[in-house]
Amino acid sequence: MTAGVPAGRPRDPGVDERITRAAALVYGTDGWAGFSVDAVARKAGVGKASIYLRWPNKEALFVATLASRLGGVRDIDTGSVRDDLVALARQVLATFLGEDGGAVLRLTVEAGGIPAGREHLDRFLRSQVAAARAIVLRGIDRGQLSRDTSVTLLLDCISGGALNHAVATPADLRAQVAAGADRYAEELVDFVLSSSYRVPR
Amino acid sequence: MTAGVPAGRPRDPGVDERITRAAALVYGTDGWAGFSVDAVARKAGVGKASIYLRWPNKEALFVATLASRLGGVRDIDTGSVRDDLVALARQVLATFLGEDGGAVLRLTVEAGGIPAGREHLDRFLRSQVAAARAIVLRGIDRGQLSRDTSVTLLLDCISGGALNHAVATPADLRAQVAAGADRYAEELVDFVLSSSYRVPR
Repeated sequence: MTAGVPAGRPRDPGVDERITRAAALVYGTDGWAGFSVDAVARKAGVGKASIYLRWPNKEALFVATLASRLGGVRDIDTGSVRDDLVALARQVLATFLGEDGGAVLRLTVEAGGIPAGREHLDRFLRSQVAAARAIVLRGIDRGQLSRDTSVTLLLDCISGGALNHAVATPADLRAQVAAGADRYAEELVDFVLSSSYRVPR
Repeated sequence: MTAGVPAGRPRDPGVDERITRAAALVYGTDGWAGFSVDAVARKAGVGKASIYLRWPNKEALFVATLASRLGGVRDIDTGSVRDDLVALARQVLATFLGEDGGAVLRLTVEAGGIPAGREHLDRFLRSQVAAARAIVLRGIDRGQLSRDTSVTLLLDCISGGALNHAVATPADLRAQVAAGADRYAEELVDFVLSSSYRVPR
């Protein structure tokens, strides 16, 4: 038996996931001011006891939600700098167009005032920088990027371009943008790379 | 005497500005959930009566704040596509690094749930698109940009790049980013334009 889990039926990981998913939605819609165990229980369709069985209070539930759903950007090594950046752009688009997008944006706005919020946001941001830096360094090693390629500028254009595309879209065009996201990631990367790419694929 | 203003001393425009400035700060920090005439009065250092003299309720105060402080992006015509885009990038950086930045980000997150919020945000976003489109069209006319330059990609990279630079910065580097913002706007534009620029200045 795992430490911390009471005797009896083992914890159902499907319920954990349902609760943190609902928690991300509640936080994304109502922010920290509207975040409560009560609201999350209602959204998840579980009793409050099911939540308190797992987490002692809303702060702990929130931290677990950040960890499980807003983990950050993964580095992907495809062998091609172009395909690596396309994968990065797609991750950013999927994050902000997906159901956790509201929560990530909220965190950007109000991280400073929430327990563990600033710390988690900084970790999320650093994961983007780390992924971009790894992609650029491999690209330079392969001779696909010039030695003086700026990680900051490349990341701001790819990640910021994807962010802008996802959030700076009038409401009535949101569905259209989501449907074209994979294709857009390629166009964005090709547009940015045409300034710094050396060797065609 | 102006319609709607009670007899007696004329309204002091300095007080209007002090109130809407405080309102933008309160909204940026606490969101719509924490936005109240009381909180704004405290922040502005005025009595609640001074606010109610001007606006009948918090919704009206909020709409006036959006209109006076978060008006959108202006088109600038310098004669050079590069300088036009630098001006655009500087406007975006100034917005998000300045004291109204929190309010604009908040609005991006929670516009849908606030009276007139969505409408104002869409107007703000359209002002960016309009400014970028005008810059690109003039650039094409002058032969500085190729005919098939994508307004969407250019705007996502410039505006999104500036946005990312302003908000995706760990807290301890914020002051450094603000100090270098003007210079960064030039680097960003030169980086993006190197892919689509035709005739050097």
